Amino acid sequence: MPTHKSQMRKIKLSQEENFTSEDEFVEFIKPLLQKNSGDIGIGDDAAVVDFGGQKLVATTDMLVENVHFQDTWVTPKYLGRKAALTNLSDMSAMGAMPEFALVSLIMRPNQWQKGFVDKLYQGLLMEFGPYKVRICGGNITQGAVFSITLMILGRVHKQPLLRSGAKMGDLLCVTGSLGRMASEVKQLLENKIQQAKELPVCRLKFAQTINQEKLPSSGLDISDGLALDLQRLCQASQVGAVVWQQNLPIDHNLHVAGYSKQETLRLVLSGGEDYELLFTLHPNKLELIKKLARTENTPFSVIGEITPQNAGLKLKTTSGKLLPLNPKGWDHIRA
Amino acid sequence: MPTHKSQMRKIKLSQEENFTSEDEFVEFIKPLLQKNSGDIGIGDDAAVVDFGGQKLVATTDMLVENVHFQDTWVTPKYLGRKAALTNLSDMSAMGAMPEFALVSLIMRPNQWQKGFVDKLYQGLLMEFGPYKVRICGGNITQGAVFSITLMILGRVHKQPLLRSGAKMGDLLCVTGSLGRMASEVKQLLENKIQQAKELPVCRLKFAQTINQEKLPSSGLDISDGLALDLQRLCQASQVGAVVWQQNLPIDHNLHVAGYSKQETLRLVLSGGEDYELLFTLHPNKLELIKKLARTENTPFSVIGEITPQNAGLKLKTTSGKLLPLNPKGWDHIRA
Repeated sequence: MPTHKSQMRKIKLSQEENFTSEDEFVEFIKPLLQKNSGDIGIGDDAAVVDFGGQKLVATTDMLVENVHFQDTWVTPKYLGRKAALTNLSDMSAMGAMPEFALVSLIMRPNQWQKGFVDKLYQGLLMEFGPYKVRICGGNITQGAVFSITLMILGRVHKQPLLRSGAKMGDLLCVTGSLGRMASEVKQLLENKIQQAKELPVCRLKFAQTINQEKLPSSGLDISDGLALDLQRLCQASQVGAVVWQQNLPIDHNLHVAGYSKQETLRLVLSGGEDYELLFTLHPNKLELIKKLARTENTPFSVIGEITPQNAGLKLKTTSGKLLPLNPKGWDHIRA
Repeated sequence: MPTHKSQMRKIKLSQEENFTSEDEFVEFIKPLLQKNSGDIGIGDDAAVVDFGGQKLVATTDMLVENVHFQDTWVTPKYLGRKAALTNLSDMSAMGAMPEFALVSLIMRPNQWQKGFVDKLYQGLLMEFGPYKVRICGGNITQGAVFSITLMILGRVHKQPLLRSGAKMGDLLCVTGSLGRMASEVKQLLENKIQQAKELPVCRLKFAQTINQEKLPSSGLDISDGLALDLQRLCQASQVGAVVWQQNLPIDHNLHVAGYSKQETLRLVLSGGEDYELLFTLHPNKLELIKKLARTENTPFSVIGEITPQNAGLKLKTTSGKLLPLNPKGWDHIRA
């Protein structure tokens, strides 16, 4: 649930009026929970609560059939791996260390098979293994539509990485490349390929390292597209931003696919599911983070800078024009 | 996930063979997770893990449309209350104190409304409020079938209440009455009533109190019917049990409904969704627990006793006959 410290927008919806975005939903439930949740903010990529003097970090994310994937696109092992990686990404976004997982499954009757369950769990364990995340429980139910919901529990030793904290003049940075996952979904939808094989890259170690060194001023993971997630970061930090088109790390696969320039830009800015780390940085920390990125073997790019809030979200094109950056990402209400 | 310390049954299933019960599913995934989960047992009503020197208790449970309820039976507020209560019941079953909740929703397009969400959360808060459980995060997705998955985090100060620990000669006890929830589901399915109104009674305080005093030797909550959940307790404790029919606390509503004796017994033994606490007790602790039950205003009945494992599960009828007790409960695979 996004936007930890964004200003409370007054939502005026009649009882029958529909929410038009996830962010609107989150803003709506905030006041409902305020009395109940005490000092805990609803938002950011994971919740952080005090537990026995430690900072416990908890997050949940799900994959739902016919929403996040089509049954024919995926193997059970792929589903397990992707479910693990998207949840680990929320922990990366907080600079947290994951420790435990709960697994909740709704499975169709034809999925109650040793083979299916074995491969699904192999997929989970394959991604959890390197980080010693232990599956400690869960729940199973039979249903008409498959879904897997994971909850990850972990901790941060110092401060979590938050969406708020970006300051004017900070550099805007992103790990890896953008558009790869969205390009694959596009090709699956257009029947150009039959099976999903691309998976998010886990940025957990890099995120922990730079957060422990207090290098980023803010950060989140790009789950719903660069433009929409950047908007969330800017709202939480009460700043604006300009993205430099010429510095955008376009994924190699997009060049191979031969998309138009416009389609490439759309996939990079609004495609979603990249699960790369978007973070801001005081310029005097750039050299140090470059060094750490080399040590951790984690590519990253400086793709823009933070501006005053009233400057809004802008794209500086390769030709030098300054255009409004429209935050159209993957939204579970608008989708 | 049931049966914390049950003996590992060797499951022999071909890759295509279907699981025939939830317990078989749990036994199947145990060895998959053994290497990964370390010292943490899969099973019992919630997971207990060490977190910063504290015993963190985590559980998850879900309500799925067309599986646990029909859309026309329920109001959004009822769904919120029931989701909260079934999850709190898992914490009761461990003698744990809940502290935080995550809420994961899959909502149909026509449910993205202020009115629906408002009432759903009012329902959650109504049940969480008295125990100061704070909703600290969650996830939302649009989908074809509504489901609500909660995850509750809490703690136990001393030892958790486990399914294992029942000893031969212990008394078998249950809180409240049995069959009320199952009777309502039956009447809904038979179109004798149109709206669900019955809700589980929360046994959290009583469970915490008796567990803190180390009174029960084992315990769990009855989610899938007395017979099936008793079988799980007996497997975990490696004991048998005899249930005394004449002591069974038949819910008042079952008398009112005028069921046959056989149907009444079926609802009480196998109906499911009672969410009452089933626990075992050394006989010399009976007087103390009676006193605590009066203080906490929690009715409970002694409904049988623990026998050797090879005596199996038996029902002693009102006429004194000893019959095998068939553990047919609500099972999400067999259902």
